[in-house]
Amino acid sequence: MAALSEDNQGSAVVGQQRSAKGRAPRIVIVGGGFGGLACASKLGGAPIDVTLIDRRNHNLFQPLLYQIATAILSPADISEPLRRTLGRTDNVEVVLAEVIDIDAQRKAVITRDGAPIEYDTLVIASGSVDNYLGHDEWKMHAPGLKTNRDARKVRETLLLAFERAELALDPQERKKLLTFVVVGGGPTGVELAGAIAELGSFLIRRDFRNISLNELNIILVEAGSGILSGFDKKLADYALKRLAARGVDVRLNTPVEAISEGDVTAGGRSIPAGCIIWGAGVRATPVAEWLGVKPARGGRVPVESDLRARGFDDIYVMGDAALVEDEDGNPLPALAQVAKQQGKYLGRKLRAEAEGKSRNAAFRFRNRGITAVVGRNDAVFQSGRLMLTGRPAWWLWAIVHVYLLVNFEKRLLVSVQWMWTFLTGQRNARIIDDSD
Amino acid sequence: MAALSEDNQGSAVVGQQRSAKGRAPRIVIVGGGFGGLACASKLGGAPIDVTLIDRRNHNLFQPLLYQIATAILSPADISEPLRRTLGRTDNVEVVLAEVIDIDAQRKAVITRDGAPIEYDTLVIASGSVDNYLGHDEWKMHAPGLKTNRDARKVRETLLLAFERAELALDPQERKKLLTFVVVGGGPTGVELAGAIAELGSFLIRRDFRNISLNELNIILVEAGSGILSGFDKKLADYALKRLAARGVDVRLNTPVEAISEGDVTAGGRSIPAGCIIWGAGVRATPVAEWLGVKPARGGRVPVESDLRARGFDDIYVMGDAALVEDEDGNPLPALAQVAKQQGKYLGRKLRAEAEGKSRNAAFRFRNRGITAVVGRNDAVFQSGRLMLTGRPAWWLWAIVHVYLLVNFEKRLLVSVQWMWTFLTGQRNARIIDDSD
Repeated sequence: MAALSEDNQGSAVVGQQRSAKGRAPRIVIVGGGFGGLACASKLGGAPIDVTLIDRRNHNLFQPLLYQIATAILSPADISEPLRRTLGRTDNVEVVLAEVIDIDAQRKAVITRDGAPIEYDTLVIASGSVDNYLGHDEWKMHAPGLKTNRDARKVRETLLLAFERAELALDPQERKKLLTFVVVGGGPTGVELAGAIAELGSFLIRRDFRNISLNELNIILVEAGSGILSGFDKKLADYALKRLAARGVDVRLNTPVEAISEGDVTAGGRSIPAGCIIWGAGVRATPVAEWLGVKPARGGRVPVESDLRARGFDDIYVMGDAALVEDEDGNPLPALAQVAKQQGKYLGRKLRAEAEGKSRNAAFRFRNRGITAVVGRNDAVFQSGRLMLTGRPAWWLWAIVHVYLLVNFEKRLLVSVQWMWTFLTGQRNARIIDDSD
Repeated sequence: MAALSEDNQGSAVVGQQRSAKGRAPRIVIVGGGFGGLACASKLGGAPIDVTLIDRRNHNLFQPLLYQIATAILSPADISEPLRRTLGRTDNVEVVLAEVIDIDAQRKAVITRDGAPIEYDTLVIASGSVDNYLGHDEWKMHAPGLKTNRDARKVRETLLLAFERAELALDPQERKKLLTFVVVGGGPTGVELAGAIAELGSFLIRRDFRNISLNELNIILVEAGSGILSGFDKKLADYALKRLAARGVDVRLNTPVEAISEGDVTAGGRSIPAGCIIWGAGVRATPVAEWLGVKPARGGRVPVESDLRARGFDDIYVMGDAALVEDEDGNPLPALAQVAKQQGKYLGRKLRAEAEGKSRNAAFRFRNRGITAVVGRNDAVFQSGRLMLTGRPAWWLWAIVHVYLLVNFEKRLLVSVQWMWTFLTGQRNARIIDDSD
């Protein structure tokens, strides 16, 4: 491609510069989620070499993953390539690799396939994985919602269950196919159950002939005595009532005891189901194990007030992987806003240090409010003493979430699809394409 | 879901009506591509029971599949659920099943998992599959582009090749990773090669640091003496020149002799490659075998002028699966517009017959013109003596293809993403999400 090779001199020069300034301190960030990406962005242009490692090539807007599972959006609508965000930041490089260990003595990150990656300062923002409560064998029968692939799999399982029920003559088989079980009554479980109820009623009204609405059976099982435990009781009760009105059978005090192919045992009863989805919480990626420290609750790594891993000088942990307490001693929740604020804080701090300024302020979380969607025009929102329900909460949620998307193109695409779904009920992405 | 069960009375009644009128003639359509869907749509509301069978739940706009492979669009943008198109047509039902045989004596379609589906009249519109020239074992190393899954796989392979090359130090490994081979110089091959050249130059300029444009090696191998054989020589020459200017190495008279993992042997030379894509034509689905007739060229079934399979009274074949000749005795090409026109023709004919009118006109193809895109602002278009190249051809192509999409929502989504890519070069869908 000789005709085009001139264009490349820019990047060739960058490469030379990079090898020439090999002595610049090197910060390695593990994980391109909200925390890692915010940290890397703040370090752009600083006199540091930054390497961001992720096993995927994109930042995923996980709060909307349930909308891929329920056929409203496509993966690309909520996935931003890391290189797109960081591509113009000369001192930040992106490496696609899976981290499997940390060698703190040698100061190197160990990846599955490549050479160890050395650091001067290490930032671990590797997030969390679904917590199967010690039963990892349940995962294959009850996927969670952490990746695009998970969400596509759930979407396909849901849509296939309807297709099969449409043809099934055996009443028991039909009943099983049209029973969908969501495990866990947190925001993920509530949003999924609500969205499946809407998807199901739309499909039955518009797409399918031989299925009636009273055959649809959406069950939300929760081990505790209430749903949305992080919210005020008033809001949790509201959500519970609204879910019931939408046809979701919420079963409280119902711990899951076993899961096998197409069957959940919960509260002593077996529930044959066409789709089982795990939304019962997360645990930290095995960072504590990598560092050889004792994990705190949820596998999280205890950190100092500046996010430094306890017992280390040069390793920081943040986001879902870190245990940070608020002023009352409660652990901060595993939320995007926590990770993002920590990433910005840490990026600013490390940048200041690299520039010779000192910055000793501790991290302080500013709660932007929490929200959970129950369905169209219906959500709960809480920020301190402010509580909203129903339409105002839903619109606030929708506007905030569109705004939080990374760029204008995604905002426009998501808005168009939401408007369409809002006005017509249609689900643009109800495609089954993995079957061979 | 007692609160909602009222809504369902409508569809329950439809179900009862359907079983009561069991004696209406039953037309079974195999395949929900352009032909099958057009035929089913024309039969909506006629006094016939229609069953449309497809192994996928959506109609796929295959002409834009290469844009999924090159990270411009998402599968949902070009996939329309069959039930969305046909959901309001009470006499047409959709069955998700894979057809594996026809029992013409019993007048039944045999599916892989379900009961045989009986017909009075059968319409076969099952299309074509990639033609590996008797070497089906090449498929696993060189996917074609027939389904969303294929396209996602190609996209992932392309993007991963760049990620690996960014980290690779061995010059030979780098060279292999950055060599992309497209087999076949028809419209699919030309569009793919052009789109990969654009994707590659964008990624190298914007996303990657350690790859230079002159390392990128896109090879289009064609067994014949020219590309775009269906086009006028002037247009084919134009496309050849423009591909070369975009850095595509077009190798004519270069038949493929062998394909293994990451290696193509073509014209006696081995080419190690990071991605190999098959675009060397299609052959009909095994309809001739199902019917026990001798297949014509490309495995197609010879049909009468009214698309009736030769030797059958009650079986019609159309689209890529049928061999129809134009006035000069040349077979009609395997194109969407041919299938669509045949579907409409057959739907009208079968409807007229069911309504007691006779309709004996033979099918006549009206050529709407053919087109192939070379890159941004660059295409060739030919309709009879009218020939366009470059910018006018590209704009014509873009407008026509947006118009051909099924509904306003898709038109809007595709337009937004095209505008974005056109103005900024960005590729919204460059995500790798299948890696575990």
